[in-house]
Formats: sequence, C-alpha cells, structure tokens
Amino acid sequence: MRKPIIGVVGTSNDNSPAVDMALKLGRLIAQEQWILLNGGRNRGVMRAASQGAKEVPGSITVGILPSESAEISPDIDIAVITGIQNARNNIITLSSDVVIACGIEGAGTVSEVALALKNSKSVIAVNASAEAQNFFRQVGNNAVLHVQTPEEAIAKAKDLLRGT
Amino acid sequence: MRKPIIGVVGTSNDNSPAVDMALKLGRLIAQEQWILLNGGRNRGVMRAASQGAKEVPGSITVGILPSESAEISPDIDIAVITGIQNARNNIITLSSDVVIACGIEGAGTVSEVALALKNSKSVIAVNASAEAQNFFRQVGNNAVLHVQTPEEAIAKAKDLLRGT
Amino acid sequence: MRKPIIGVVGTSNDNSPAVDMALKLGRLIAQEQWILLNGGRNRGVMRAASQGAKEVPGSITVGILPSESAEISPDIDIAVITGIQNARNNIITLSSDVVIACGIEGAGTVSEVALALKNSKSVIAVNASAEAQNFFRQVGNNAVLHVQTPEEAIAKAKDLLRGT
Amino acid sequence: MRKPIIGVVGTSNDNSPAVDMALKLGRLIAQEQWILLNGGRNRGVMRAASQGAKEVPGSITVGILPSESAEISPDIDIAVITGIQNARNNIITLSSDVVIACGIEGAGTVSEVALALKNSKSVIAVNASAEAQNFFRQVGNNAVLHVQTPEEAIAKAKDLLRGT
Repeated sequence: MRKPIIGVVGTSNDNSPAVDMALKLGRLIAQEQWILLNGGRNRGVMRAASQGAKEVPGSITVGILPSESAEISPDIDIAVITGIQNARNNIITLSSDVVIACGIEGAGTVSEVALALKNSKSVIAVNASAEAQNFFRQVGNNAVLHVQTPEEAIAKAKDLLRGT
Repeated sequence: MRKPIIGVVGTSNDNSPAVDMALKLGRLIAQEQWILLNGGRNRGVMRAASQGAKEVPGSITVGILPSESAEISPDIDIAVITGIQNARNNIITLSSDVVIACGIEGAGTVSEVALALKNSKSVIAVNASAEAQNFFRQVGNNAVLHVQTPEEAIAKAKDLLRGT
Repeated sequence: MRKPIIGVVGTSNDNSPAVDMALKLGRLIAQEQWILLNGGRNRGVMRAASQGAKEVPGSITVGILPSESAEISPDIDIAVITGIQNARNNIITLSSDVVIACGIEGAGTVSEVALALKNSKSVIAVNASAEAQNFFRQVGNNAVLHVQTPEEAIAKAKDLLRGT
Repeated sequence: MRKPIIGVVGTSNDNSPAVDMALKLGRLIAQEQWILLNGGRNRGVMRAASQGAKEVPGSITVGILPSESAEISPDIDIAVITGIQNARNNIITLSSDVVIACGIEGAGTVSEVALALKNSKSVIAVNASAEAQNFFRQVGNNAVLHVQTPEEAIAKAKDLLRGT
C-alpha cells in the first residue's frame, strides 16, 4: 500500500502569516507518516511546509516544479521537473489524496483549489478569508472544507482518507 | 501582423444565463475580426461563443480541447487536441491577448481566471456574482475588470488591445 | 466540416536541405486548402513551411509554440502558446490528421515521429536517411510511410485522409 | 543533497527480453541508493524495474503516470499523476539525472530517448538493436551511450553523475 500523499498549496510570499502555519502543517503531515507534496520552490508556503516535514525523521517530500530554472527548496527529497510551468498546478492536485490550502491569497493558489475541485478532489482550506469562503461556497458545492488551524486540517484529512 | 486572439471562458452548463451572453459575445468578437479561442467543447459557453462567431462570414474559431475524446463543437474551425486534460486551461490563457470570462460560475472557469492572472493576462469578467467580484478584488490586484454586458466587454477589450 | 490539419515537423536547422522541401510542402498543403500546423518557431522547417503556405491566398497556418519566449514565425496566423516546452510536440501530433516529417534529422523531430506513432497517427517521412528508414521500419510497424518528394507526400496524405 | 534520480525507460511489452534486464537494473539502482523513476505503469520494463528496486530495503520508486486511469505498479512508492498522457514522457526525462533505456523497441521509448537528447540529458542504452545504434549515432551526436548489460549501465551512470 502506498502512503497517502498530501498536497499543500499556498502563497509564494515569504511574508504571509500562512508561512508559519505551513511550517507546522508540514511537520504534522510528516508525523502522520504521510508524504508531503507541493510546488517545490524555495518560497513561501512551499518552502515552509517542506522544512517542517523534514524536521521529522523518515519523512518524504516531493516537489512538482514548473521548470528547470525554478529554485528548488533544500528540503525537497524528490524534485519532479515538469517543464509545463503553471500547468503543473494540475499535476499537484491530481497526485494528492487530499489538498490542503494554507490560506487562499494568490492567483496560483486559487488555480490549485479550482483545479482540485474540477478534478473532484476534496480541498481543506486553513484560515481562508471571509471573501474566499463566500466565493468557494458558491463555486465549490461545499467541497472546500474550511478550518482555522493546522491541527484541524490534519483531523479533517484523516476523515477524508478514511472516506468518512 | 497576427489578428488578436480573444479567449472566452465560462461554464459548460447549458442552462446558465451566461450562455446567451456568450452567443452575443462570440458574434461581437468576430465582427471585430478578432479570432475567438475557447475550450472547444460542444457545451455551454464554449458552444455558444463559437456559434455566435460563426454567424459572421470570415470568422475564425479555435478550440483548445482537453483530450481526443472530448466532443468538439461543430462551430470550431481549428481543433487543437492537447491531451493534457484540465491543464489545457493554462494554454487558453497563455494564447489569448485578452481573456473574457462569461460569468465566473464553475471551478473550471475559476481556474482559467486565476491562471490568466498568474500569467499576467488581463481578464474581463461579464456579469460576475458579487461574491466573485469581492474575491477577485482581493486576489487579483484589480486585474479582473468587471462589466455587465458583452458590448461593454468588447469596449474594454479594445482598450486593452490598444494598451490603454 | 473542419478542414484537414496537416502537421509538418522537421529540423530547426536553417541550413538543412529539408528547408527547401518544407517551403514547397507548405505551398502544396495550402493549395489543397488544408490547414498547416507546425511548431511555430521562426527557424528551419517550421519557418519555411509557414512561408510556403502563406504564398497561397486564403491559407491558414497554426503554430504550436513551446513558450511565451519563443520567436514566432511572421507567417503564422494563429499562435498557440502552450508553455509546456518540448512536451508540445505531443500536441502537434494529436492535433494533426496527418503528420509529415520533412527529414528526420534532429532529436525534436524524432520525438514527434515517435509520439505520432504512439498516438496511432500515420506519419509520412520525406527523404529520410537510410538509417532512419531502417530504424522506423523496426519500431513503427510500417506506420511511417517513406517518400522522396513533397509532391509524393501530398499524394500519400490524400490517400490517408480518404482512409485508403 | 538530494539523492540522484535515475530514469528507466523501455517497452511496456511484458514478453520482451528487456524485462529481465529491467528487473536487475532496478535492483542495482536501489543498491546504489539512487531513486528509481519511471512511467509507473504495471507493465513491462516499468513494472520489472520497480519490482527489482523494491527488493532492496530503503529503496524509493517514483512513477510518472500518464493519467488517473493508468494501472499503477504495486512497487511504486510515489505515484505522480500527470494527466498529460504521453507528454509525461518529457517529465520523465527532465526529472532524471541520468536516463537509462532498457532496449529501444517501442515508439514510447523512442520518444523518451529523443526528448532526453532534446533536453540535453545523457542517455545510456542497454542492449539496443544495431538499427537503433546506427540511427541514434546519426541523430544524437553521440549522446546515447551504448552498453550491453545492467552492470555496465550502472558503471556508466556513475561516470555521468561524477561528471566524468
């Protein structure tokens, strides 16, 4: 049996409050012995989630990179170089058993949440703005689950992986 | 000089009020002698926009299809079969000089608007919901321009093509 | 009914003898009122085929470009910007009713012939080397048809489009 | 430092003699503590290489799958679902530090070798036919290195990883 893959998406802005949440989220994912998958770059939520996961011995981190020229986070174990630029966001959602959005702040993250829904994947959004919650309630047929903390996200992910 | 390419995105739901707007929008785009580009399928906004364009003699319609098995609208002149499924949404935005969203109702359309913003493309949204407007005001740095009618969308597109 | 799309692939080397053949081939394709599709760049076989086609009034040329930064041939009418780099070679083969290889000299062209075969498309190879003919006889189950001149390629393409 | 990723490509035909070589090759790659990457399907060279690698404790196997519907080998640890069909062959080559072709028999493998060359990657071909060797000598500027056995392939891969 393959280990579950948890995709974490979020802003590449290093100054967002989502970055601290991502660090914690990465750590919790690794403690569950789940594989962390993200966009692989050395920026923002991607970097922090990978860093948090690699604090845990035996963890595995997979980065789905847009191109050969993207700077890879040093905490990525396996770098998949897609060469398909932003279209790689679709691969992130297709490859994840559960997608967790650490905030829904930038256009890249919005595309990932939307592509996840389009691919019939569940999305857990941590600490999304009221505007994002209102919008995705309308668009997503309640397939975006909103929580406030990384711990709640992990609990929801467990439910989803159990199929409950 | 190549003719401008106008990408039209929107729901595949045949019963949406966006479908009537798309028919008109396709016609107006063709009357400007612009090339219409869309997702190419025989559904909803895609089908209607293509149909509207082909009412105009000399029009050109380009469909960017997800796969070989997708049903192609009979009003598509040039069918590009990408084989990359929903990731083809990124090609639609990259290939368009201006992207017009006919409503922002479904997850596919949301991904297209978001990818357009991520690729630094302007997006004109016709008749988007208040929730969508509030959300993309926050996410898109005002790069989504909201209008109410196809005629206003064409006027905005002219401004954008002139670089004003 | 959509017009047939003929994909022309070949070297980006401007000094290859395949370039003169491509110029003629592009012209003949346009004279049949077929749509010419190629990689869209302003190099080698791509440029020459597009130039030949645009000598014919009413012709349509479609370029499937690897990225936003690729230089587009001035004879391309419709530029599809894929952003997926060399993976766009698969889109060229999927979108073509018939693929014609103008020589099989470079690695890019080899990938296009191979992907065409993988996608169950017929390939007409004009003036391929003895080594290429021997190799693809082994690999391609005789799905690569070898001819010597652009005129013979057009005759074979007519057969394929008729399903004979 | 990330572990080297070795891409193994080859026929999906279960009856090819390349399958036995792939089993051995997968084992040897894992013994070097390199990561094995391949097309991930439960067929031919892909299945055998993954199986060989997983005989070695601590090994890591990554599958780059064409679509959600492809059957995944049970010996794949990390399944990346690309959704881009045969265009995923380009991701296999971009993500590998070294590409090893276990025979060059089918069109898919030919496309992978060609895309690797196009992406300036070295390719080690094990036991390729005389026709394949003659052809790629002409096309590949000697960037395809021919060997007869899995052991020789590993030795060449070490040289390439050392940059010698």
